[in-house]
Amino acid sequence: MLNRTVYFISDGTGITAETFGNSILAQFTIKPRHVRRPFIDTVDKVHQVVREINHTTELEGRRSIVFVTLVDSELLAILKTQCKGMVLDMFNTFIEPLETEFGITSNHRVGRFSDISKSQEYTDRIEAINFSLAHDDGQSAKNLEQADVILVGVSRSGKTPTSLYLAMQHGIKAANYPLIPEDFERRAIPASLAPHKAKCFGLTIAPERLCEIRNERRPNSKYASIENCRHEVAEAESMMRREGISWLSSTHKSIEEIATTILRDIRPDRLMY
Amino acid sequence: MLNRTVYFISDGTGITAETFGNSILAQFTIKPRHVRRPFIDTVDKVHQVVREINHTTELEGRRSIVFVTLVDSELLAILKTQCKGMVLDMFNTFIEPLETEFGITSNHRVGRFSDISKSQEYTDRIEAINFSLAHDDGQSAKNLEQADVILVGVSRSGKTPTSLYLAMQHGIKAANYPLIPEDFERRAIPASLAPHKAKCFGLTIAPERLCEIRNERRPNSKYASIENCRHEVAEAESMMRREGISWLSSTHKSIEEIATTILRDIRPDRLMY
Repeated sequence: MLNRTVYFISDGTGITAETFGNSILAQFTIKPRHVRRPFIDTVDKVHQVVREINHTTELEGRRSIVFVTLVDSELLAILKTQCKGMVLDMFNTFIEPLETEFGITSNHRVGRFSDISKSQEYTDRIEAINFSLAHDDGQSAKNLEQADVILVGVSRSGKTPTSLYLAMQHGIKAANYPLIPEDFERRAIPASLAPHKAKCFGLTIAPERLCEIRNERRPNSKYASIENCRHEVAEAESMMRREGISWLSSTHKSIEEIATTILRDIRPDRLMY
Repeated sequence: MLNRTVYFISDGTGITAETFGNSILAQFTIKPRHVRRPFIDTVDKVHQVVREINHTTELEGRRSIVFVTLVDSELLAILKTQCKGMVLDMFNTFIEPLETEFGITSNHRVGRFSDISKSQEYTDRIEAINFSLAHDDGQSAKNLEQADVILVGVSRSGKTPTSLYLAMQHGIKAANYPLIPEDFERRAIPASLAPHKAKCFGLTIAPERLCEIRNERRPNSKYASIENCRHEVAEAESMMRREGISWLSSTHKSIEEIATTILRDIRPDRLMY
């Protein structure tokens, strides 16, 4: 396979365009070179990036693929007319039919995140991240009534990254609490969680996978042994069943999939987006 | 403005589609109701969601907007032919021209994250999150040679959320270290950072904004006073200038914008995507 380059051109961070472009490219077996060019928001910068793309296209002997999110129509026009790559306009492709449908024109406001740093939505996201960090791994039982979700599960079942993802992507205040051998002996969830059971959500994991993960951390420990992993997982699952806590297995799921399932199932009141 | 509903229909989490759809809708002044329907991966589920959309469209008297990422052509065909909403097919719109350009057909593989939980990319992201957590706020100087980036700056300048974002979104191992009064007195960056100066990146912030943020945490403290904030910020900036560390101001920037700028400027070797 000869070389081929994919460009992501945006007037903002280009993160949305690149993530979306990647999920489209994942449908193909080819592995092109990726180049991101964020903050392309002046005529000069567009000309510079057009020169770069045209040079690459000539060198490689095949059109570069150019995923574009440019709001300014002047900048977009320069790119579309002068660029020798294959331009995929991710924005206007959908903006134009929506303008017709809504019967109004769009703002042509640059960048999803422009000036967002002072918006309520952004402040809430940062606050959610701070909350989730402060309530990681049962560190604090303070202000649990403010939590939107409390993840529970045995150590290394995926609670921490899922909590942080919920906070960062969705502005959800996600606390997490480990279920530990003491809880299994008492046959009850940690006392501080009892008043908040309705917002608890459990993560479980296949003992074999848990054993692998724990062995990376503490090789050959009792903690990581398959017998102990089997025991803890079985105890945690029966506790969640007994307490009526919804749960899912993180074994074959990414944090995105876990987070999406949690949001679908418990529908926190304050879903940001 | 009458009611209007926007649906995000996906066979996976739908997160990419929703984030991207939101950035398109942000170009319009209308504020439609958002409904996400993830994991729509069977004929039955498609029929159910079509009934829901058609019902909404009838109730509201205007077509629902339906952002769709469905890979399976049978499911997509049902939706396209039977749904009375306005279907915006975010996937095939770009897949089809790319199939022509590449001269190959696409995989029609469902979901960007399917079975990703065991992939190297996913493992690396989780490892980066764990690394960033373990190296938050100068907690550990261990394994700093493994860091891709080390953020430095005064307390509450935005280092923690930016580090976590770099890890979660880009699989970047981002440590962060506070610059504290002791460092300013010694007129030198923390000793453990000295060997790693090339991967340090500074965050600064307007003293007025810093004062606001710190006052939320510790109202009326010396720590939060405008005089102290001015002093710390001036000291930190002159230290970074002296040490030759690149830096930017987080005052009017979101974590996405800060992260994108960092990646553009220091180009860590192992950029995941």
